[in-house]
Amino acid sequence: MFGNRPPASPPLALSAKARRTQEAPISALIGAAVANPDLISFAAGLVDPTVLPAEQCLAITQRILADRPRAQTALQYGTTQGLKALRQQVVSHVEQLEGRPASSYSISADDVIVTTGSQQTLYLVADSLVDPGDIVIAGNPSYFVFTGTLQSLGAQVLTVPMDGDGMEVDAVERLLERLEERGSLPRVKFIYCTSYFDNPTGLTLSLGRRQRLVEIVKRFSRAHRILVLEDAAYRELRYDSPDLASIKSFDATNQYTILTQTFSKPFAPGLKLGYTLMPPDLMHCVLHQKGNHDFGTSNLCQEIALETMRDGSYCKHVEVLRVRYRSKRDALLAALRRHMPPSPQVRWTEPRGGLYVWLTLPPSIDTSRQGPLFKQCLDRGVLYVPGEYCFQPDESGHIPRNCLRLCFGQVTTEQIQPGIQRLAEAVKQQMDTTASPASPGCRAQRESGAVA
Amino acid sequence: MFGNRPPASPPLALSAKARRTQEAPISALIGAAVANPDLISFAAGLVDPTVLPAEQCLAITQRILADRPRAQTALQYGTTQGLKALRQQVVSHVEQLEGRPASSYSISADDVIVTTGSQQTLYLVADSLVDPGDIVIAGNPSYFVFTGTLQSLGAQVLTVPMDGDGMEVDAVERLLERLEERGSLPRVKFIYCTSYFDNPTGLTLSLGRRQRLVEIVKRFSRAHRILVLEDAAYRELRYDSPDLASIKSFDATNQYTILTQTFSKPFAPGLKLGYTLMPPDLMHCVLHQKGNHDFGTSNLCQEIALETMRDGSYCKHVEVLRVRYRSKRDALLAALRRHMPPSPQVRWTEPRGGLYVWLTLPPSIDTSRQGPLFKQCLDRGVLYVPGEYCFQPDESGHIPRNCLRLCFGQVTTEQIQPGIQRLAEAVKQQMDTTASPASPGCRAQRESGAVA
Repeated sequence: MFGNRPPASPPLALSAKARRTQEAPISALIGAAVANPDLISFAAGLVDPTVLPAEQCLAITQRILADRPRAQTALQYGTTQGLKALRQQVVSHVEQLEGRPASSYSISADDVIVTTGSQQTLYLVADSLVDPGDIVIAGNPSYFVFTGTLQSLGAQVLTVPMDGDGMEVDAVERLLERLEERGSLPRVKFIYCTSYFDNPTGLTLSLGRRQRLVEIVKRFSRAHRILVLEDAAYRELRYDSPDLASIKSFDATNQYTILTQTFSKPFAPGLKLGYTLMPPDLMHCVLHQKGNHDFGTSNLCQEIALETMRDGSYCKHVEVLRVRYRSKRDALLAALRRHMPPSPQVRWTEPRGGLYVWLTLPPSIDTSRQGPLFKQCLDRGVLYVPGEYCFQPDESGHIPRNCLRLCFGQVTTEQIQPGIQRLAEAVKQQMDTTASPASPGCRAQRESGAVA
Repeated sequence: MFGNRPPASPPLALSAKARRTQEAPISALIGAAVANPDLISFAAGLVDPTVLPAEQCLAITQRILADRPRAQTALQYGTTQGLKALRQQVVSHVEQLEGRPASSYSISADDVIVTTGSQQTLYLVADSLVDPGDIVIAGNPSYFVFTGTLQSLGAQVLTVPMDGDGMEVDAVERLLERLEERGSLPRVKFIYCTSYFDNPTGLTLSLGRRQRLVEIVKRFSRAHRILVLEDAAYRELRYDSPDLASIKSFDATNQYTILTQTFSKPFAPGLKLGYTLMPPDLMHCVLHQKGNHDFGTSNLCQEIALETMRDGSYCKHVEVLRVRYRSKRDALLAALRRHMPPSPQVRWTEPRGGLYVWLTLPPSIDTSRQGPLFKQCLDRGVLYVPGEYCFQPDESGHIPRNCLRLCFGQVTTEQIQPGIQRLAEAVKQQMDTTASPASPGCRAQRESGAVA
């Protein structure tokens, strides 16, 4: 593999964590996309390149860098926690989203940290809490980059099913009860929940379940606090539903919940900025960790983010994105209705926001990277993310293999219909050539309940 | 401490790593600086705000963001490893610094990673290699942010003395021999060395020692490879000495050494960009870790860095910084000569580059945060970094307390003379009031050999 190394050189002695860390599965897919430029890719979770805020960022950087004192701040080191003015702006922004003062859930700018994308927050929170063998609870399926991070930290990721109202919080409660009976409650560190337009399913946690989830973690916080890590990366990409109050907003004392949001999806990934509201004692630890990682995120990017929120161009841009992505979502759902074979075993989610549709196929169809459908799709020039990457194995080690994720972020509107047509043709061919009896994959997928 | 938390809430259950992670000592100093705006601070390692490249960044961001395809790249997600064009540019830049083709030490753009400052590289490399109990060898004194990181990972940081030629590599060899005798060689992961104008001492590793260090790690790489982590953050801030070949350049096969450099010191910390050349098998692991941390550093910042290297403004700016910092260094050394009490026990380094002067005082003087000199200096309105933060304890737990670090980065030229006068007056007062016999701190400091 590393052909340049002379044979005499001894190997590296890696840390236990490095040995646990695996390549993100998406990397192999990117390789496939690069190899075929005609490929229509519903795989990568990139944003739409045609609606990136170039003009806004041009105007803003001119304003910042032509103003000498401000340029000096933008180009100097900052603090580990992030620019105070940006943290204050973020609090106002979240107040607008929630429609309630931040003080009503005990949040001030001191409780906000700015990170290198919200991914860095996910990492820092997990690294501050998780030792090998500790337990994190997530939906099944779940965001595979973060479950990979958790595994590299040695966490056991235990899962609960998803249904049309998002993560089944009654199942969280039952799982915690079982863990308590087994004496494993002390190992449970947090519940990870993508509360708005989930990646990969597109599902949103219902309002009632949000409140319930806070009640549940409070109730099971006996000798230590069990937290909820609420990933709201897609919150603002909302197309035809009212905004819901966050899980965080039900945590009046800011003790049990972490809310992380980002500038990547609703503005520009190139700034690589996320922000997070968290309890003060956790903030204390996370700041120490971030001090060791990088002692602060780019001040220039933070100044740009501050200015776009201040001058109103942020909210205007979010509106532009909503219109654009709504029409792409509609095109994707229309193409699925038009081209997919009519069968009760072929169903998909209809997201009210975000960038993802989750497709469930007959249990006989194997969507995995090594399976026949993936290869057929590659041959026909269409790419998806195999659902297997998003599932945790059940107690017998089984992973459903009849689902896939479609992202309508980067693909053009014009590509959507032909892309889905190619996918549907490959699906039909597989349905014609495979047997129909339910495979073991079927049961697990029905339990996970992704709705059509 | 967290007054808002109702007493009923149970505590967080932190990871072992979070429990090992301590607040960076510099944070307390920043608090002191904020409390007194008249303070002249030689403490913070910030760069000079008056020579930040605002005009260059203004011109460059205009060029990037007005060019639609380029703006789309700058504002989109990138790759975990970083922009290929920037990595290629970095290889050319390092070739110019070394005066040799990168191929002569087996480096191509594939061996370069772009990170959130070089600090992130230090973290990622350490996290990929170090388990609790593993050994890292560093100079004494050493860069305290990174030794803090190493301790949070559970590393034992063993040290060797410094002299006028930098880290004593003969002492590295002897230490490795002793570790081998004890059977501890398998735990040695890497040697950390700030090879140019060291933080905190200002010392530079001599050319002969660079080559020797590579030979030593090769020789002691028995069952696993021992690496050299070369931190060259200050390399380009060179005032009156020829550039030296890096340690990396003596590693012809790119197997034993990691070279990390930054845009923060020679250009602008606000971009928060560093770049690192490393062996391919280590790159493989580090990329997986960075994938979990943030899956890539800001593309906008990377595009700016690429453009400033391409259009020549980077090299021009480095020249401006050299002139500026050279004159500040000269002012600092002149003020020390003028104001410090003439005594063989009062001596300081005369750095040929970088941002730091290391001052050694009579052993009877305690420079520590809680000691009388620090308080006197605060009262007189001058701030330094206590040397104690930079030392690792010896086998009896002893840390020298008669040294301090002076940074001439952020302070203005006009502040240097009065600032050093205040410091010298405090030192004289302490010398008058303390006894002269050598304290145990003296011997350790003489062994660590920071030269006058």
